[in-house]
Amino acid sequence: MVSGTDPRIANLTELFSELPGLGPRSASRLVADLLTEHKDLALSLARSLEDTVSRIGRCRSCNTLCTQDICPICAKPDRDRSIICVVESSSDMAAIEESVSYTGSYFVLVGRVNPLKGVGPEDIGVDKLVARVISEKVCEVVLATSYTAEGEMTAHMIASVLKRKAPSVRVTRLSKGLSAGVEVEYTDPATLTAAVLGRR
Amino acid sequence: MVSGTDPRIANLTELFSELPGLGPRSASRLVADLLTEHKDLALSLARSLEDTVSRIGRCRSCNTLCTQDICPICAKPDRDRSIICVVESSSDMAAIEESVSYTGSYFVLVGRVNPLKGVGPEDIGVDKLVARVISEKVCEVVLATSYTAEGEMTAHMIASVLKRKAPSVRVTRLSKGLSAGVEVEYTDPATLTAAVLGRR
Repeated sequence: MVSGTDPRIANLTELFSELPGLGPRSASRLVADLLTEHKDLALSLARSLEDTVSRIGRCRSCNTLCTQDICPICAKPDRDRSIICVVESSSDMAAIEESVSYTGSYFVLVGRVNPLKGVGPEDIGVDKLVARVISEKVCEVVLATSYTAEGEMTAHMIASVLKRKAPSVRVTRLSKGLSAGVEVEYTDPATLTAAVLGRR
Repeated sequence: MVSGTDPRIANLTELFSELPGLGPRSASRLVADLLTEHKDLALSLARSLEDTVSRIGRCRSCNTLCTQDICPICAKPDRDRSIICVVESSSDMAAIEESVSYTGSYFVLVGRVNPLKGVGPEDIGVDKLVARVISEKVCEVVLATSYTAEGEMTAHMIASVLKRKAPSVRVTRLSKGLSAGVEVEYTDPATLTAAVLGRR
């Protein structure tokens, strides 16, 4: 704690230490810094945080985190809306955008299905995805969930729902294989198997 | 960036990434988390930050960071005000308080002297310290600055000012020696020398 005792500083430090990735020590250093050297940054941060949280919602079309009705990507007229790339989060969408390899549209799930926690397809927004696939006459859905147990299960569930409700749509997955810059020696057997089978 | 494009989310992420200890990746994860799972925490944080920054000042008596006129430690009637422990920051004061080894009063400097950057004794609050030493008839001043080049220089400068303006006050330094739990083998030569000379 910065001052051990001032109640406002103690409360602020405690709130910072609840953020993921910050412990009591780093929160304390952060608060001391904000209250001495960076008061302007602290005020901007407080205002931006309050403003953003109060306006946060999801894009009407792609479901990404957004403070407007339609997100800037969906608002672009040059994106190919006959392809939808389905991702687990807005951060995954940002990562794919950064790769500058995709010009279609997106659909952002609210996390992944998790039967143990009772999270089914309806809880992560699959109904909204299916409605869009049907109403916008989508040709292809790329399931870009991670190759983890939950990600695979999510992809599998969405694929079955689409097969039932929109049987004409083509459903694909991102390819599996070696990472750029990673040596073969350090690649796990499951990924190597996929890379060998998917060779071209 | 959480969404790559929403201007409010991008701005919020940039502000977070300016905080010491947070990079763009961790800021992005933090923002995604605050905007989805922890909106209440985000709002509490925004309000606490704005409230604390708008009220922050320094204790009239000991100069520590404080949102009131007098800090809770100075307000305690049982602290011995004839001894002043001089520290470099409110965090140092908190660390000494946590050790529960000191019952006197404090004086918190605004950093350390740094002749290269033009930071002299008057810039770190030494005048205020001297005024208190004289007006409150203080017997002892413990210079609890760190044993770093800047900390030693700061202690030296304060000692000379006190010798000139309050010659009767006893000026001491925190003892130098082995750290608790650290093996002799891993202690640096300067500290070992101090520990040998200061043996008792």
